[in-house]
Amino acid sequence: MRIAVYPGSFDPVTNGHLDIIERASLMFDKLIIGVLNNNDKTPLFTAQERVKMLTEVTSKVPNVEVKSFSGLTKDFVRQEGGQIIVRGLRAVTDFEFELQLAQTNRVLAKDIDTIFLTTSLQYSYLSSSIVKEMASYNGDISAFVDKHVAELIKAKYMLKNNKTN
Amino acid sequence: MRIAVYPGSFDPVTNGHLDIIERASLMFDKLIIGVLNNNDKTPLFTAQERVKMLTEVTSKVPNVEVKSFSGLTKDFVRQEGGQIIVRGLRAVTDFEFELQLAQTNRVLAKDIDTIFLTTSLQYSYLSSSIVKEMASYNGDISAFVDKHVAELIKAKYMLKNNKTN
Amino acid sequence: MRIAVYPGSFDPVTNGHLDIIERASLMFDKLIIGVLNNNDKTPLFTAQERVKMLTEVTSKVPNVEVKSFSGLTKDFVRQEGGQIIVRGLRAVTDFEFELQLAQTNRVLAKDIDTIFLTTSLQYSYLSSSIVKEMASYNGDISAFVDKHVAELIKAKYMLKNNKTN
Amino acid sequence: MRIAVYPGSFDPVTNGHLDIIERASLMFDKLIIGVLNNNDKTPLFTAQERVKMLTEVTSKVPNVEVKSFSGLTKDFVRQEGGQIIVRGLRAVTDFEFELQLAQTNRVLAKDIDTIFLTTSLQYSYLSSSIVKEMASYNGDISAFVDKHVAELIKAKYMLKNNKTN
Amino acid sequence: MRIAVYPGSFDPVTNGHLDIIERASLMFDKLIIGVLNNNDKTPLFTAQERVKMLTEVTSKVPNVEVKSFSGLTKDFVRQEGGQIIVRGLRAVTDFEFELQLAQTNRVLAKDIDTIFLTTSLQYSYLSSSIVKEMASYNGDISAFVDKHVAELIKAKYMLKNNKTN
Amino acid sequence: MRIAVYPGSFDPVTNGHLDIIERASLMFDKLIIGVLNNNDKTPLFTAQERVKMLTEVTSKVPNVEVKSFSGLTKDFVRQEGGQIIVRGLRAVTDFEFELQLAQTNRVLAKDIDTIFLTTSLQYSYLSSSIVKEMASYNGDISAFVDKHVAELIKAKYMLKNNKTN
Repeated sequence: MRIAVYPGSFDPVTNGHLDIIERASLMFDKLIIGVLNNNDKTPLFTAQERVKMLTEVTSKVPNVEVKSFSGLTKDFVRQEGGQIIVRGLRAVTDFEFELQLAQTNRVLAKDIDTIFLTTSLQYSYLSSSIVKEMASYNGDISAFVDKHVAELIKAKYMLKNNKTN
Repeated sequence: MRIAVYPGSFDPVTNGHLDIIERASLMFDKLIIGVLNNNDKTPLFTAQERVKMLTEVTSKVPNVEVKSFSGLTKDFVRQEGGQIIVRGLRAVTDFEFELQLAQTNRVLAKDIDTIFLTTSLQYSYLSSSIVKEMASYNGDISAFVDKHVAELIKAKYMLKNNKTN
Repeated sequence: MRIAVYPGSFDPVTNGHLDIIERASLMFDKLIIGVLNNNDKTPLFTAQERVKMLTEVTSKVPNVEVKSFSGLTKDFVRQEGGQIIVRGLRAVTDFEFELQLAQTNRVLAKDIDTIFLTTSLQYSYLSSSIVKEMASYNGDISAFVDKHVAELIKAKYMLKNNKTN
Repeated sequence: MRIAVYPGSFDPVTNGHLDIIERASLMFDKLIIGVLNNNDKTPLFTAQERVKMLTEVTSKVPNVEVKSFSGLTKDFVRQEGGQIIVRGLRAVTDFEFELQLAQTNRVLAKDIDTIFLTTSLQYSYLSSSIVKEMASYNGDISAFVDKHVAELIKAKYMLKNNKTN
Repeated sequence: MRIAVYPGSFDPVTNGHLDIIERASLMFDKLIIGVLNNNDKTPLFTAQERVKMLTEVTSKVPNVEVKSFSGLTKDFVRQEGGQIIVRGLRAVTDFEFELQLAQTNRVLAKDIDTIFLTTSLQYSYLSSSIVKEMASYNGDISAFVDKHVAELIKAKYMLKNNKTN
Repeated sequence: MRIAVYPGSFDPVTNGHLDIIERASLMFDKLIIGVLNNNDKTPLFTAQERVKMLTEVTSKVPNVEVKSFSGLTKDFVRQEGGQIIVRGLRAVTDFEFELQLAQTNRVLAKDIDTIFLTTSLQYSYLSSSIVKEMASYNGDISAFVDKHVAELIKAKYMLKNNKTN
């Protein structure tokens, strides 16, 4: 059984991520979405919230599982019995950073390989940061994220602005 | 059964290509190497010679098949019952061209997807053209291609220079 | 009156070119499409055929004129009384080449400036070369060029293949 | 009347920005410089100070107006009755980020388009950050910013260092 | 006597840095490694610790000296009687930033020039940040840094984690 | 004695090349300009003409020698007793190609290293091809090449056009 892992922050999951998830799920027997729980950064959504959100929006994709992890990606992949890391590529600057990550992972773990999928055209400009910036200015994000995710983001910013005031 | 196709000119096959072949063969049930028979260009080796060369140097990889094709890649993939195109990425200029190809193929054939593998570090500078240029000046190419391939290239250039003189 | 010039080979004009033409025509009082008549290359369509094709597919854009030219772009722009050169940008490799052209034109003609428009997402992978390559293999190009242009391209390749046989 | 908007932080305005302003002002009937008032970052100069600085150094350009704004660029452009966003391009990394912004703005506001001008050669290495870093070490910045701006920057750092000591 | 300066943060020094040091030391009569003491950032190792570390791992290279500096690089180079700045290049994003730095330094100091060496293949993915990130997750960094440096990094993180708990 | 080699086609030598030559000559005891005599291409000037042209325009630089060579660069460098290859970098696409060349040369000859100089700002858009294209349309090239070289190029094109007519 070939198991692939798609690691990321997914804070929040965008339509670009969903596009990669759907396509990668067709290529392997099982696709595990690894939600990175990075202590250093202060995410909009907690790792737990992100796992829940991803589980809901991918409920129709049969061979997908969502889990959170911390530490090195290769350790998570190995622990899950995976052989392949899936990453999305949007632009050249993505590419260089991803290339460095892939090469480092190959040095650390020869049995784990990385494949890249290029984000579909209509999502190639999208990023979680842009979605959050737009939402923080009350911009319309319905073209960029799942309907359910859009509602959760709005609720988050409503609570946030409430605290600040 | 998941079938992937690795298309290219392979004129000649380098150690960089072999690295991609070995890694991609582990990811899918079958890997078909598609040798592009492009009428416009004048290759060093004929498509037939390249198929033979590739068959020999990949003889140890169990789930690999080598075939030549002409026309559009997506037509060849479909005819072989494949769902996935495999491409190697070395550098940023590669990346942009490959991105264009992948997007075009997605528009033409929604059921066929493209994945990218980054060439291993020690082969990241390698290309068939550089190998041919070095061989044409009688340079040592043993670090860049399989031993058997190196002999075939030498023989080719010996015959070529003989004709010119 | 501000006059802009959009120079190019347009061999053939694609939907990506049309997108740039429509958007640039809104920005200036007049947009002149300059069809480069380059003696060195052997185009699929003659400059005359390309001017006719462009005139037809841009007939609905009121402030557009199509002309052919040879020689340096800046000389053509000046002769037409223009102040601005319009260029489309798709990718990073485009960008570098276009940057060199723009800088050279600035040195040669300080009164003429260059602006860049980024090709709309759905056409960002398109090029005249890709369209021609697909058409030469009898591929479906209806998503990439105007209906009328598609027919002209088919006719061209039919005649071409006839000659070869 | 065609109105263009040149948005940015301008913290502080450099000779590279002035070059873009002068060139863009020739292309459209009116050019509005939009000084982004971003709450998240701690700029060297307040938005008010930056508006004043820009108004002074562009006093000779007849059709320029300087205003500050917060929120999404497209909302500011629409509120000012503008149709066009002007951005400067220096390098490839600029280009990719700008491309993402332009595509996002097109999705959000189909009636607003973005044009790019390439920074003139002698300013192509310049950025507000580099100017600030040099000034913080008491370096000579007279080749990079307007004389008046240079004095304001020096005054700022003098006050800043005073506070720290 | 030609004196070159290799400036950087070296927090910590990696095998990639050592590769550049060894190669650059062969090209000039003296190579001074300039350890940047940047007040703004909070490094893992103090400037003093980094100077000591670098002195130890370069002890076998005869014409190398290690010093710390703060302020502008060109002032440090001039003070040391140097004429040349040495920088390593790994990737395209490096290249653009380095190009900006080199051009700025040329404007500020016409008598000081910058040369670039491309990092050897096996270290082309390496950076001090990646080493630190791996070490913070207790990853194996022995392939990336000198044995002595690896021990110092481990000790640093042990102390750090102790404080946090 | 440290000997560096600056290889290239120099067809013709531009002000950008001269800028690199003058700066590199200050860094090493001797700088040999290697004029590549490539049989495959049809240059505007013969290798002999290019050597003569370069010798004349570099006559004021004391430690420069001009020679032509064919075959692999590393063989020429070794034959001349050199240790260092000098290359100019203008843009990202340059960079990637040069990186490949440098890595290949390192594999073939561990004792020969490559350094890169970035072309000065005012020449960063220049290339021999652009100069030739402009000259072929009778454009003014006096800002791009030495006065003497400009005359030789004009003479070449006069003879060429004469033949064609």
